[in-house]
Amino acid sequence: MRTLLHHWMSAPSRIVRVLLAEMSLPFDLELERTWERRREFLAMNPAGEVPVLIDEDGTTLTDASVIWEYLAEVHPESSLIGADPVSRAECRRLANWFNVKFAFEVTENLIGEKVLKRFQGQGYPNSDAIRAGKANIHYHLDYIAFLADRRNWLSGNSFSLADIAAGAHLSTVDYLGDVPWDEHPGAKDWYARIKSRPSFRPLLSDTIPGMTPVPHYADLDF
Amino acid sequence: MRTLLHHWMSAPSRIVRVLLAEMSLPFDLELERTWERRREFLAMNPAGEVPVLIDEDGTTLTDASVIWEYLAEVHPESSLIGADPVSRAECRRLANWFNVKFAFEVTENLIGEKVLKRFQGQGYPNSDAIRAGKANIHYHLDYIAFLADRRNWLSGNSFSLADIAAGAHLSTVDYLGDVPWDEHPGAKDWYARIKSRPSFRPLLSDTIPGMTPVPHYADLDF
Repeated sequence: MRTLLHHWMSAPSRIVRVLLAEMSLPFDLELERTWERRREFLAMNPAGEVPVLIDEDGTTLTDASVIWEYLAEVHPESSLIGADPVSRAECRRLANWFNVKFAFEVTENLIGEKVLKRFQGQGYPNSDAIRAGKANIHYHLDYIAFLADRRNWLSGNSFSLADIAAGAHLSTVDYLGDVPWDEHPGAKDWYARIKSRPSFRPLLSDTIPGMTPVPHYADLDF
Repeated sequence: MRTLLHHWMSAPSRIVRVLLAEMSLPFDLELERTWERRREFLAMNPAGEVPVLIDEDGTTLTDASVIWEYLAEVHPESSLIGADPVSRAECRRLANWFNVKFAFEVTENLIGEKVLKRFQGQGYPNSDAIRAGKANIHYHLDYIAFLADRRNWLSGNSFSLADIAAGAHLSTVDYLGDVPWDEHPGAKDWYARIKSRPSFRPLLSDTIPGMTPVPHYADLDF
């Protein structure tokens, strides 16, 4: 069986969890507290980050984008990246948009400050960073609404890795109640469709010790 | 003819310049001052960043990692990512290491502060950031020496995209003289091999208006 080393509030780990479920590839989840810098873990991933996927044959893969490319190559029949080079380029552009740009501008400012700093014992959240994260999220939600309005799903007519990446990052921020859904109805409609997918349900039942999600977090009608 | 919109000091643009040269794919270079936020440019890439590659058939591609995957798919015969899924995973891991992690920990702290802020008229460099960049670079150079010692090139026996990504980022920092080569002889040996490749020569003759490179910048024997 595959094993995914993850943390609940790691958005890149959530991308891989949803992707494996969408590709019907079963896996066991194992919690990794990256800040403990476990020796065996650092040997697997010198970057010290989750996700790390140990595939059935023992191949160890680190970094969400490395994992999604690997899975698409090894299981092309269920790939969610796209059918041809141009569609794949658009899907990757958007997956990176959320897993790099949104991560840097929003996720790290909110989850990094409010959640991970606490786990890591790194002191108090930086209020400037939180303010920046809350300001930055608006144009990303506008962009989601713009894309979902024109294309059905973010990178085209079909559900893809781009939707998974955006949904995974937003789900961590939504756990804290920091997504202003009511100001962005187009993005909210898209996220309601994401939330109702079976692959997404396990994320919505995550409960982090000492940290209760906002009441609407798992609610399909939010 | 392909056109690459770039900026001299954008390390991701340098990755694509070297990659295209290594793959023997001719291209024209066009300078894009991203901070001017040219309308036609933002229509091509809403993220507002270089590189942007306009391929021969008009396909527009943004984001270095999207471009390297596209080129590998469309020109598999000259791909520099690797021969099988596991080698490609290792190559991508290291290419991302330099184009995301090194970028965040080193390049943005040094080039972002010292060079791009000046072009963008965003005020004075932040000395804390510069100090962080100069401290962080050491363990990356150690990692390069570690890999190059065991594998010949960074991701294996052959020169690959991983070497291009690392070399491109280091070359921007080296322009300013901020790479402590003498403390890292293993990394220096590897970089001497990178510098001597014909694909790398055009980068070494870049001269940025009002910003002279350090004397050893283009020197093969540095």
